[in-house]
Amino acid sequence: MSVAPTGAALDAAVLESDHASVFHSWSAQAHLPSFVVAGGERCTLWDHAGNRWLDFSSQLVNVNIGYQHPRVVTAIKEQADLLTTISPATANATRAKAAKKILRQLPDSFQKIFFTNAGADANENAIRMARLFTGRDKVVSRYRSYHGNTGAAIAATGDWRRIPNEYSRGHVHVFGPYEYRSEFWAESPEQECERALQHLERTIQCEGPESIAAILLETIPGTAGVIVPPPGYLAGVRAIADRYGIVLILDEVMSGFGRTGSWFAFDDHDVIPDLVTFAKGVNSGYVPAGGVAISARIARAFDERVFPGGLTYSGHPLAMAAIVATLDTMRDERIVENAALVGKQVIGPALAELAESNRLVGDVRGTGVFWAIELVEDKGSKAPLPAAQMAEIKQQLFSRGLVPFISDNRIHIVPPCVVSAVEASAGLSIVADVLNELAEAPA
Amino acid sequence: MSVAPTGAALDAAVLESDHASVFHSWSAQAHLPSFVVAGGERCTLWDHAGNRWLDFSSQLVNVNIGYQHPRVVTAIKEQADLLTTISPATANATRAKAAKKILRQLPDSFQKIFFTNAGADANENAIRMARLFTGRDKVVSRYRSYHGNTGAAIAATGDWRRIPNEYSRGHVHVFGPYEYRSEFWAESPEQECERALQHLERTIQCEGPESIAAILLETIPGTAGVIVPPPGYLAGVRAIADRYGIVLILDEVMSGFGRTGSWFAFDDHDVIPDLVTFAKGVNSGYVPAGGVAISARIARAFDERVFPGGLTYSGHPLAMAAIVATLDTMRDERIVENAALVGKQVIGPALAELAESNRLVGDVRGTGVFWAIELVEDKGSKAPLPAAQMAEIKQQLFSRGLVPFISDNRIHIVPPCVVSAVEASAGLSIVADVLNELAEAPA
Ligand SMILES: Cc1ncc(COP(=O)(O)O)c(C=O)c1O
Ligand SMILES: Cc1ncc(COP(=O)(O)O)c(C=O)c1O
Repeated sequence: MSVAPTGAALDAAVLESDHASVFHSWSAQAHLPSFVVAGGERCTLWDHAGNRWLDFSSQLVNVNIGYQHPRVVTAIKEQADLLTTISPATANATRAKAAKKILRQLPDSFQKIFFTNAGADANENAIRMARLFTGRDKVVSRYRSYHGNTGAAIAATGDWRRIPNEYSRGHVHVFGPYEYRSEFWAESPEQECERALQHLERTIQCEGPESIAAILLETIPGTAGVIVPPPGYLAGVRAIADRYGIVLILDEVMSGFGRTGSWFAFDDHDVIPDLVTFAKGVNSGYVPAGGVAISARIARAFDERVFPGGLTYSGHPLAMAAIVATLDTMRDERIVENAALVGKQVIGPALAELAESNRLVGDVRGTGVFWAIELVEDKGSKAPLPAAQMAEIKQQLFSRGLVPFISDNRIHIVPPCVVSAVEASAGLSIVADVLNELAEAPA
Repeated sequence: MSVAPTGAALDAAVLESDHASVFHSWSAQAHLPSFVVAGGERCTLWDHAGNRWLDFSSQLVNVNIGYQHPRVVTAIKEQADLLTTISPATANATRAKAAKKILRQLPDSFQKIFFTNAGADANENAIRMARLFTGRDKVVSRYRSYHGNTGAAIAATGDWRRIPNEYSRGHVHVFGPYEYRSEFWAESPEQECERALQHLERTIQCEGPESIAAILLETIPGTAGVIVPPPGYLAGVRAIADRYGIVLILDEVMSGFGRTGSWFAFDDHDVIPDLVTFAKGVNSGYVPAGGVAISARIARAFDERVFPGGLTYSGHPLAMAAIVATLDTMRDERIVENAALVGKQVIGPALAELAESNRLVGDVRGTGVFWAIELVEDKGSKAPLPAAQMAEIKQQLFSRGLVPFISDNRIHIVPPCVVSAVEASAGLSIVADVLNELAEAPA
């Protein structure tokens, strides 16, 4: 009789059967990560052997409310007992409630929610709405961006993940403001902002404004490096969109629902978009869900005209129950306010200090629990720290009990929004230790 | 103090708040359906007022196991207590188990599962794999088909839903075999099969075989009319694919996991595809999930090469737990066998009799719990029954306690796979009554 493995043996067994049967995203299948997750709570994860990690990644920057919040878990279980699945064409109390709660966090100009399964299909449907609303084809987005892995979303994406996947027409990419590595030879944030706007407007003029349906931007480009736009940039984009009758879509899939210390990142940028796409934080990914928040002006255009888009699980009841409970909990427990406070009092100061003292830290930037540390070989040349060293950093952080989010030459500091000041400090100390040891090591 | 509404007043309140805040798929928003669903069990749904319906739609043909199967609900709740969300880059016991259980139902040539959120992104990723595997661009699919609402999936789709959404390049459409309305002037099933294959091969030759990455087919086109292919067609497609080095993707999103009375529709058609896309029945939509089953030959091509596709909720633990419990339950309770039996003993004979006796029934076809009744004004001309009469039929069925699945001029008979012979007979009587009254009414 065989005995079921436990502990470290179980971790090994899970890894083996995972690698035998599961095909992993964005990976070469012979080189898969070896992190087994057995469970989690708030900001902590563990494997079957009982090793514990402080999560500074929120997985894919989605677990804003932390792992296994009892109110959300209970809501999912209650909805599971009531009704797990129902088609989008019906009406269901939980779905209507979820839509209302999301709308409550948005400006008054927003009227309706179209639910999707995730972020990519939220962007797909927002692009579809913009195209049908304007009768135009093209979508302008940024090189430094990620919008999801499906047809239009991956073509709108700017980073390397777009290149092997460019099968959709009508996508134009521009550079955005990025003070640390200006594409515009700018010497101040004001100049970076002004030039980025001019570059955008000139591109639109040359593409033909009457051909452009939408400007699609991550409010704060996330995976691309938590690139907080300079003051005035997004308001300037809004003005350009208005000048040419273009729909402004802000992708808040990563930046929304507390990540920045506000409900939406655009709340702090003096801009109101026409469409907002969301996913991740809306229910912390407890059940797959995403959506498009639609302003009244665009929603009304489909009162008498059929919207030609849909998906089997749009407004899925379990996902809706998780949204309702997540938003209620975030309000009641002041989780967004916590993210703002920890960012201001703990993460910001610690990173500023690190940037000052460590020769490898080229730039730090962020807000709330949404930060990036940009690592360079040399502060003068700003040459990105090579991949091998980044891999070593990742390994070091991991082995000291921290789950990091590493992207290119950056460490993103993106713990759950519920992270306490003490946890944040503890995690930041590990990061500082690893970076300081590396900076002091003989080259 | 206001009292919370109950019963019919609650239904009205839910409808009102749904219509105020929820943007619905494939609809003009001023003309939404008014079906409130409060709960369900097995094949029955109810509203808050206590009205009950027998479900002959399985919603969007996804609730194969029926509503609220206690084993699946329990599995979701247990997983919710353990771990609701974890990123695709980690390994997790439930995910590995789900992959293994799916692979167990597939031919030995299949090796790995790539999990997605639904059917559309399953097709997106299958197309991506085929393109990268072959180094070619084009995808051949059928006019009578639906493959999902995202970029490549909607461009691969053949029906009207593609037309306002054609922004992806590299899609070619062909006609498939459809004996009742032959596109090939055929006079027998054998001739229809032979000519459909010739048409496919000629199209491939004219497009340039070396430009074609994939042939993507619903094994049995579902929403397009449950068009069961004639014997030999799919084996013939396989031979053509092999002749030109083209990847064969079978879309089993609707036809898979018991719907046809087999685990997969292709099990009955003497064909083994290279990639299988699935969703819906894999866990009856209890938690959003889909995926691509990958043959070893294609999986191996990504051992050392990065697969450039991914999504935040790939292999979501709640969805995985629902898959494991669904597949175990379907085996233990012999649900696939039930679907086969009810199809053979009840639905098939009842529809054959209706086709014989009712002047409006032009054709009936199907297998398992996957059937279509094609309604015509006149059996000679085969002119489709007009939309106004189809709407009247829908209304009549609904008011007599049956939730129908209506598509164009067809009633699809697609109850959950757990439907009993008694329920199936009861539902079919309602259908027959409504169609017989209509046939007898003065024109
Ligand atoms: C800004 C942004 N948009 C869209 C997406 C795509 O979301 P999903 O993976 O849920 O499709 C992501 C995912 O990381 C994202 O960060
Ligand atoms: C055959 C087929 N493929 C793909 C899809 C798309 O699935 P989803 O709506 O889950 O994206 C459907 C949905 O009806 C389908 O029937």
